[in-house]
Amino acid sequence: MSTVLGLGPQEVGEVVSGLRPGAEDPLEAFARGVWSGLAEPGDGVAGAFVASFGAAEALRILQDGAPPSPRPELAEGFERWRPRLDADVARRAFRNATRLGVRLLLPGDAAWPSGVDDLGVHAPLALWCLGEEAAVMRLSRSIALVGARAATGYGEQVAADAAAGLCDRGFAILSGGAYGIDGTAHRSALASGGTTVAVLAGGLDRFYPSGHAQLLQRIAVEGAVLAELPCGFAPTRWRFLQRNRLIAAASRATVVLEAGARSGSLNTAGHAAALGRPLGAVPGSVYSGTSAGCHRLLREYDAVCVRDAADMAELAVGPDPAMTLDGLEPPGDPTERRVHDALSSRTRTVAEVARRAGLAVAETIGALGILALDGRAVETAEGGWRRAP
Amino acid sequence: MSTVLGLGPQEVGEVVSGLRPGAEDPLEAFARGVWSGLAEPGDGVAGAFVASFGAAEALRILQDGAPPSPRPELAEGFERWRPRLDADVARRAFRNATRLGVRLLLPGDAAWPSGVDDLGVHAPLALWCLGEEAAVMRLSRSIALVGARAATGYGEQVAADAAAGLCDRGFAILSGGAYGIDGTAHRSALASGGTTVAVLAGGLDRFYPSGHAQLLQRIAVEGAVLAELPCGFAPTRWRFLQRNRLIAAASRATVVLEAGARSGSLNTAGHAAALGRPLGAVPGSVYSGTSAGCHRLLREYDAVCVRDAADMAELAVGPDPAMTLDGLEPPGDPTERRVHDALSSRTRTVAEVARRAGLAVAETIGALGILALDGRAVETAEGGWRRAP
Repeated sequence: MSTVLGLGPQEVGEVVSGLRPGAEDPLEAFARGVWSGLAEPGDGVAGAFVASFGAAEALRILQDGAPPSPRPELAEGFERWRPRLDADVARRAFRNATRLGVRLLLPGDAAWPSGVDDLGVHAPLALWCLGEEAAVMRLSRSIALVGARAATGYGEQVAADAAAGLCDRGFAILSGGAYGIDGTAHRSALASGGTTVAVLAGGLDRFYPSGHAQLLQRIAVEGAVLAELPCGFAPTRWRFLQRNRLIAAASRATVVLEAGARSGSLNTAGHAAALGRPLGAVPGSVYSGTSAGCHRLLREYDAVCVRDAADMAELAVGPDPAMTLDGLEPPGDPTERRVHDALSSRTRTVAEVARRAGLAVAETIGALGILALDGRAVETAEGGWRRAP
Repeated sequence: MSTVLGLGPQEVGEVVSGLRPGAEDPLEAFARGVWSGLAEPGDGVAGAFVASFGAAEALRILQDGAPPSPRPELAEGFERWRPRLDADVARRAFRNATRLGVRLLLPGDAAWPSGVDDLGVHAPLALWCLGEEAAVMRLSRSIALVGARAATGYGEQVAADAAAGLCDRGFAILSGGAYGIDGTAHRSALASGGTTVAVLAGGLDRFYPSGHAQLLQRIAVEGAVLAELPCGFAPTRWRFLQRNRLIAAASRATVVLEAGARSGSLNTAGHAAALGRPLGAVPGSVYSGTSAGCHRLLREYDAVCVRDAADMAELAVGPDPAMTLDGLEPPGDPTERRVHDALSSRTRTVAEVARRAGLAVAETIGALGILALDGRAVETAEGGWRRAP
């Protein structure tokens, strides 16, 4: 085996050992980690190239300089990736990750969130994970709760109630660690003793937003914090948008709790819709700007109107068979209702009741019998009927 | 021509003349008016019987006592209707109607709201109308605004804004004259100089609810008040439910603005859905009991989430082609966005910008050119680039 990025086999083994203890094929793991910093998240050309050749071999081809086929998109890819080929950056990323206790997750790992594989060539090449791999495994039964940074008290109340109720029902809560809805959902999940996972847009060595450093630290201890980019990589707008695709793909369903008409959480919702994942939106006042995005999702994206944790659980796993959706028709038999309407607190004859109800006498007598059994009508001594008091 | 309900042809002509001045076939009009009190609203057996024989002939057969065919439902119908055959009740109903200035509308009249014909045999046999027939004609471009009697300030604000906005767009407002949402919608329509029509569950001689007598009087002067039942007939629960079918059928679309989980306005919504009429629901707080019914409609009845008059107009007549639904994706080209992200307030070389953006140099230069044209990037004297201030 030749060197990769100037590192020989032994050095690669050392660099990877802390991030994937005991795992096979450290070179491939190292190369995938490097690729996660060479290609921007969601780079489908990189995804296809790595899928074709393997990460290590693809990296070697990139280093050698000539694309293996004359496809123009690959040549453009080489132009994008080559300026980032930097052994120092890679070494530093791995060293910092090791120092922080980060694990490097690869497709096929037990903890790999298999939902992201639905992204195809746009799937992440690797995921950097700080925290409990067990929490990441629970993403197979997770719901993404996302929403406005500038949440209102209403949105935060809904987020807190929803996260707690979903944790009670055995769901993990996935979100983006942002201020507002995201943070409230994470906090409520932690407070409920549930599982919560945050996905960041930059590397794990710099928690963003900085005001949530302590919260993210807690999530990393009790749940997990994931990143697609290596340590040393800052979040950018592009990376936030691509991070959103991971939140949509890794969870079973995405719920937008509160969002302005152009909120970033609508981007997460768009990814969920594109992936065919269930998408829910919490309604709110039509006068609230922070519900405008939710209402757009209900109108334009066929999002399901979800009111509480029960609705969100149903969104993710289908209706609870114990729950019945009782009808819009007022309860009871229409004939009985008409006969009951025709009764008064004063006694009326059966003929009078029948006339008032617009029913035949025989029908009226039948309905009066049932109403009497229900305690809603009383037969009087003189043979008439009145409404039960 | 023999007598009907003891009235000879001349007396029938006199009884009907004030209600349908100059109209042909007063006997048929009289008989339809009588039938509207013999059969409870929505009685399909009566509808089919009158459709088969004409109202006058059907009335004569009923008087004579023997159903014309051995169908059991008709025999049961005869048992329902015969106890109500009362010349005094009919004469009084017509006399009171004449005294109040009521018109009797029949199917085929110019002012007949043709939407109700979609109810088939359950269509009303006649409609009693107090007010402007021109207002009734505008029901072909009306929207039903219905909702909770116990409306909140939020619901009333939405109702007032919606009714005013719809009147501005040339829609008439149809509702049930009840307290809460109904009354607010009517009032706002009147205040906007728009057209509004109320449908009552009982006869027009007794406005219900009595606290809305003055409002209904104003509606009768500036718009119209309709009833399926003749004067002298009280509203009953059954009649309220059947009144709701008329509101759904006579309008182009039904919108529920605020409703408890078991509100009567959900019954109107159910009729609209059954008729295939567009159905809208206004969202609200998930913690508000008076929005629970609206949220049920969104979840269980595929109601459209409507936020304002524009949405309701679109619900009724389709989208305004001038309106575009711009996307959930953030605006702008993704490459430009990535290049812009990679700029800083300090000068960077093109190569540096390309590396940060994860793009090829050629792509980066192209995007920088466009950003410069948009005034979002600035080429510096030393040949580098920085973000526009």
